[in-house]
Formats: sequence, C-alpha cells, structure tokens
Amino acid sequence: MKQLRINAARLENSIFTLAEYGKNESSGLDRTTFTPAELAARDWLKQELESLSLELRVDQAANIWAKRPGTEPALPSIAFGSHIDTVPNGGKYDGALGVLIALEVMKLLNEHGIRTRHPLELVSFSAEEPNPFGLSTFGSRAVTRKLKRTDIIGVTNPSGQPLTEALRSAGGDPDRFEDAALSLAQLSAFMEVHIEQGKRLLNRDIPVGVVTAITGIYREEVIVSGEANHAGTTLMEDRNDALTAASEIVLALEDVCRRHPASEVVGTVGRMTVKPNAANIIPEEVSFIVEIRGKSREEIREAIAAWETRIQTVSRHARVKRIVMLDQDPAQMDETVIRVSQEQADRLGYPSYLLGSMAGHDATHMASITRSGMLFVPSIGGKSHCPDEESRMEDIEKVANVLLQTILELDQRLD
Amino acid sequence: MKQLRINAARLENSIFTLAEYGKNESSGLDRTTFTPAELAARDWLKQELESLSLELRVDQAANIWAKRPGTEPALPSIAFGSHIDTVPNGGKYDGALGVLIALEVMKLLNEHGIRTRHPLELVSFSAEEPNPFGLSTFGSRAVTRKLKRTDIIGVTNPSGQPLTEALRSAGGDPDRFEDAALSLAQLSAFMEVHIEQGKRLLNRDIPVGVVTAITGIYREEVIVSGEANHAGTTLMEDRNDALTAASEIVLALEDVCRRHPASEVVGTVGRMTVKPNAANIIPEEVSFIVEIRGKSREEIREAIAAWETRIQTVSRHARVKRIVMLDQDPAQMDETVIRVSQEQADRLGYPSYLLGSMAGHDATHMASITRSGMLFVPSIGGKSHCPDEESRMEDIEKVANVLLQTILELDQRLD
Repeated sequence: MKQLRINAARLENSIFTLAEYGKNESSGLDRTTFTPAELAARDWLKQELESLSLELRVDQAANIWAKRPGTEPALPSIAFGSHIDTVPNGGKYDGALGVLIALEVMKLLNEHGIRTRHPLELVSFSAEEPNPFGLSTFGSRAVTRKLKRTDIIGVTNPSGQPLTEALRSAGGDPDRFEDAALSLAQLSAFMEVHIEQGKRLLNRDIPVGVVTAITGIYREEVIVSGEANHAGTTLMEDRNDALTAASEIVLALEDVCRRHPASEVVGTVGRMTVKPNAANIIPEEVSFIVEIRGKSREEIREAIAAWETRIQTVSRHARVKRIVMLDQDPAQMDETVIRVSQEQADRLGYPSYLLGSMAGHDATHMASITRSGMLFVPSIGGKSHCPDEESRMEDIEKVANVLLQTILELDQRLD
Repeated sequence: MKQLRINAARLENSIFTLAEYGKNESSGLDRTTFTPAELAARDWLKQELESLSLELRVDQAANIWAKRPGTEPALPSIAFGSHIDTVPNGGKYDGALGVLIALEVMKLLNEHGIRTRHPLELVSFSAEEPNPFGLSTFGSRAVTRKLKRTDIIGVTNPSGQPLTEALRSAGGDPDRFEDAALSLAQLSAFMEVHIEQGKRLLNRDIPVGVVTAITGIYREEVIVSGEANHAGTTLMEDRNDALTAASEIVLALEDVCRRHPASEVVGTVGRMTVKPNAANIIPEEVSFIVEIRGKSREEIREAIAAWETRIQTVSRHARVKRIVMLDQDPAQMDETVIRVSQEQADRLGYPSYLLGSMAGHDATHMASITRSGMLFVPSIGGKSHCPDEESRMEDIEKVANVLLQTILELDQRLD
C-alpha cells in the first residue's frame, strides 16, 4: 500500500473532462451553483461514482456523498473532497481539483482491491462559492448545523428563482434540510485538497502545502459622514470632506496590516460608495467595507485595535460609524492530520510547507465536527477565480499522492 | 441721482413672491430650467417688466431682455441681471437675486423719472444651473457664441424631452438659435449681482463683495489601474491595489491645494467609482474626477504641476491614466467696473472687499464680449444650492444700492 501511486494521466483526464461543463467563450467556467451547467456536472460526477460501485447518496443540502465500505463497519468514515461549483468566469481547479483527486483515490483503491478499516467517503459540497443566492459554503454549513431551514426559506436569486426550488433540482430536500447535519460521531476525519490561491508555495518552489489553520474573516461597514458643499466656493480650510477622510482611513488600514509581524494578516477595502458622487460637490458620505483576515483571532484583534487608534487621528471632522458584519474565527486544522500529512510528504520525498489558508473553505466548517486537514497545491501566478487559474500537473500529482497516503495512514492510526 | 436708494421693502417682497414658484415641501425650490414652475416664473417676470413699459424681448435662446431707452440712442446698452432657474431643491437667492435687484433698479428709475445716456437692459439668462439637459450657462453661452445650434440638436433630458421642444416652450427659437449672439459693439457693460456661496464676506463682516475674476475650472478623469485579486490569499506585499493608490492620489491633491499660497485654489474629488466593487476582491480599477479651481490660470497650472509630481511618488505599481475633461480659463472682470463699484461702495459708506468668484456664472461668458463686473452678497453659513441658502436683507439692500450707483456712474463715464 505504501507504494501505491495515483494515476496522474487519468486524473488529468478527469480535470479536463469536468472542465467542459460550463466552459464559456473566454475559456473560463460559468458553473455557478444550481445552474444547468452545474447540474450537468453533478450528473457526470454521480455517474463516475456509480460506476465505481460506491454507495451514492445525495443529502438534503444536495451534497453528493459516495461511500466505500471498510472492514470494521463500526468505525466512522474518513471523508475527503471539496466542491465542483465555480464563481462566474472561474477556473478549472478551484474546488473541482479536490473532488477529482478524491475520485482518483477511490478508483485507485478499487483497482488495487485495497481494503481500509474505516469506511471512506468522497464528498462534493453544494454551493461553496459566493453565488446568486447569497449563501456560500452552503453544503458544509448545512452538514455542520450552521445553516438552518429558516435561513433558506424565502431566499431567491436576482431572477426570482427560490433557493428551495433550485435545491430540489439538484436532489436536495428543503423540507428536511436540517437532516443533512452530521453528528460528531459520524466522521473520523475530513480532508480537503485545494489550490492555494496565493504565491507562497510557488515563491518557495514547494509542491505540497499543509494547512495549519483557515483564516478568520472580520468584516465591517464604515460610514464616514462629512458635509456636502460647493466644490468651488468652499475653501480647503472650510471643508469637511468625507472622501479625503475615508482615504486616510483606507490607507491607515493598509499601513497597519503591512506593519503587522504576521504576513498573513491582510486588510482590504474592496467596496466603496460615494454620495452624492458629483464632480462639483464635496462628498457628504462615503461608505465602505473593511475586511481583515488572519490565521489567529489574536492577530485579527491586534490589527483591528491598531487601525481603530489610527482612525481617531486621521478622520478630521468627519463622523465615523462602524457596523460589524461578520466576525468568523479562524479554524485550526487537526494536529494529527497535519503531522501525518507532513510525514507522508517526507516519506514520498516531496518538500512540504506549513501555511495558513487565507481563503475560507468547506474545511472551515467541517473542523467544528471532526478532525480536519487541508493540502494545498501551488497556484501558477497565485491566480484564482479567473480563467487563468492553473496548477502544474506535477504538483497536483504529488499532493494527490500525499492525500492518498495520509488517508491510508490515518486509517491505521485512528479509531 | 446720487441720493437715490432702492426700496428694500419692495425688493424683499419680490424675492418672496418669486420664491413661491417651484416651492417644494421642504421649502426648497424646484425650478429647474424649462419646467412648468420655471415657465410660470418667467411669465411672472415678463408681466412685471411689461408693467414697467420696458421693451420686452425673448431671444432665440429664451433669454429675457427688457430695455429702457437712453437719451443717446447711438450708445450701446448697459446690461445687468442674472438667472431665475434653480438647481433641484435649491434656494431663493441663487440667480433670482440678481434679476430681482435689476427689476428693482428699473422700477426705481421709472419712479423717479431718471433718464440715462445709455439704454439700460435687464437680462434673465436661460438655464444657468446644471440641468437635466446637461447644458449649464446655456443662455449666456448662446449670447457669446460659445453654444452653437449643433450643440443643442438631438439633446434630450432623461425623460426623453428634446431640448429644442423645451426651448420653444420658453419662447426660444432653436432654428435660429445662433441669432441670439450679440456682437462686441452691442453692449457697453454687463453687471451681475449674485450671492457669494462662500464665507469670505461673512467671516470678515463685510456686506459688499466686488469680484475681480471668476474662477477657472479644470477637470480631468483619472483612471487608476491595479490588479484584481483575492482579498484573503494575496499578501499585502503582493498587492497592486487600485483603491489605496487612488486614496494617496486624492490626498495628494488635497495637500497640494491646502499648501498653495492662494486660498482660492481648491481641489476636489467629488465622484469616484470602484471596480469590481466587491468586499473580498482587491480593487482592479478606480476612476474619479478631479476638479481644480483658481482665480488665475497660473495658480491652476501650479496646482496641477505640484499634484502631478506627487502622483508619481504615491501611485505605487498602479497605472494612472488621465483625461482632461474641461480646461476653462478664469475670466477677469473689467478694471473700470471694479473701480467704480469700489468707489460707489466707499461713497455710500459700505465696507467692500475684493474677491474672486469660486463658482462659474453667466458673467464668465459675458466678459468675453463686454466689460463685465460682479457684486457679491454675503451668504449666511456660506450655504447655497439648498433650501437653507440665505442672505440678510440689510446686505442685499447695500449691494443693490452699489449696483444702482455703479450703473449710474458707468452711464456717465462710458461711451
């Protein structure tokens, strides 16, 4: 079993086959959740899983599960997978790679007639990406009881399609939605392979990333209120300009995050609205969304505190109102899973690197119900969520082998 | 004649009468050009002028002219007036005050049987304010040949009404539009009374402002291009954030204008758009409009040059594209008109102050065809273009007397 290696050619073939579903004219993928293209991709995946004689199950949140029985039926499953939906005009790898490596692992185990102690389960989670229904990591939140039936009732996409209807079209059951939840005893571990979506592995020329924690995300809306006035007749000294005050606050955030000793503390203002937004009127109100991420709660708090102090000195006469929108703690990956992943990479002779995940993933939520881990594949140019998103097949192969061997080792060690 | 004083009670009455036209629920005025309320206000004004037995004329641009003959018919007219249209939810004084003071001057001269050498002409210009047809200082630009027939053909407001139709409804003639133009020989002088729309007179407790020049306006669109990227997975050092670069450029403009020795050099970013404008995506492109005003071309050039130098040091890796939208030179007021205005204020015992106009006015354009001057009335709180716009009646009375005496004195001095 320790000599078992995944079939890279077959895996590559799967990647390019699945990438046909939702392919658009700019060679990007439009496979947003519950669209016809995504439903077709689900059908393809289900056929593949059925041809492997796995126990196929679509849960109430339309997550696709495929179980390979173990020799000790009393043991809880070791699960692994990711998601196959994409952002609009996304790439071939974000999400799909983790599901297709899981599929390849199942094929390989069947091919070689390998028996594991634990049942193994492939999972493809529904709607991980931001989507027109406004609910990302939909499937993993349902599984971990973070999303309730009341959260999905009445939700529609901008075309007016109810989420409940879309969910049914994918095989989900909105009426029994909460039955998708798993209890703590039902899984032994969860592992997810994903592209890094950054350049840390690439810059270090390391093929295997072992994730220690998944970033916490803090978001707040900031509303800076000044005074609208004539852009000609109001002298500079008489102004209370909401935009220049907001500009200082935006730069203070950038500076605070740049100076933070942890390089993984990042702060972004991605969205901003100016009112009244006329060339000859001094802005009265500027609202924007601040996002701060970090791999520990303490780091995020430090950044917020440092930025808060700076706001007071840079906001001039403007009033600053702040409304917290999201305060999601980082999720720590399981120490055993991390250690076994590193050991297997070492044994296979692949350099590996411990790093935090700066994007959220299904594993963020799975970590609340089972020991969880993630492996990262280097992203060429650090790009993701775009048609140019790409990873080298040689890196993919290595990470897939680490996943395979880590699962087999966990199967031995865990009870 | 030197003892002649305007009738302040009658003038105040006119101000409140005209302010009924277009009055809205928040006590602001909705008297945008060519709307039913503005057409009704025009009718009121024309009736007032007819009752004074003036020679009433509505020109091809729907400007209202009312001529009082002089004793030397060969002399060109001395004209004075302003405009009666308002911005949406504007105030009682911006524009209307200049027309109503002119009306009061005509009433007073009739009442006292004063004969002048020059013909005197009241003028109420069409569409001075920004309006839904997108053409401000419409009437004065037609009179000074800056607006051609081809500029108005095909122009509609957002409801689809053609400008030509609206112009006809006010008595204009789009087919013979260019006949509204006056030649250099047709006027001897032009004077406009207006509210200051700033706090310089108020802060100095001076009732009479004598305008030396009307601000030049320079506008450019700035497009800052960075790189869109994931707000979580892109480390601070790997970013090319268009919004933080734009924030630096905005603050550099503010700083340059604050430091400029001329307090009347002002710079504003009033309009800004962020793309793709999503909380979790580093901004790819930020476009904004920069406006710089100053009372001389040199001052404006100095500010632009200083800001340009700063852009290079603060824009990081972002590309900065700049497109000039407007480069209107300042308009110098006539030295004789300035001097006579000051002398008359002195003689009447009213403190006066020389200042630049930071807003554009019809006099900007009139200065290109005749010796022109402006008098400013202090604005309470510096406010304008809002329902709170107000000026004290005691200041209005003084400025009206200065206008009256200046016209009578110019009538003596000019040929």
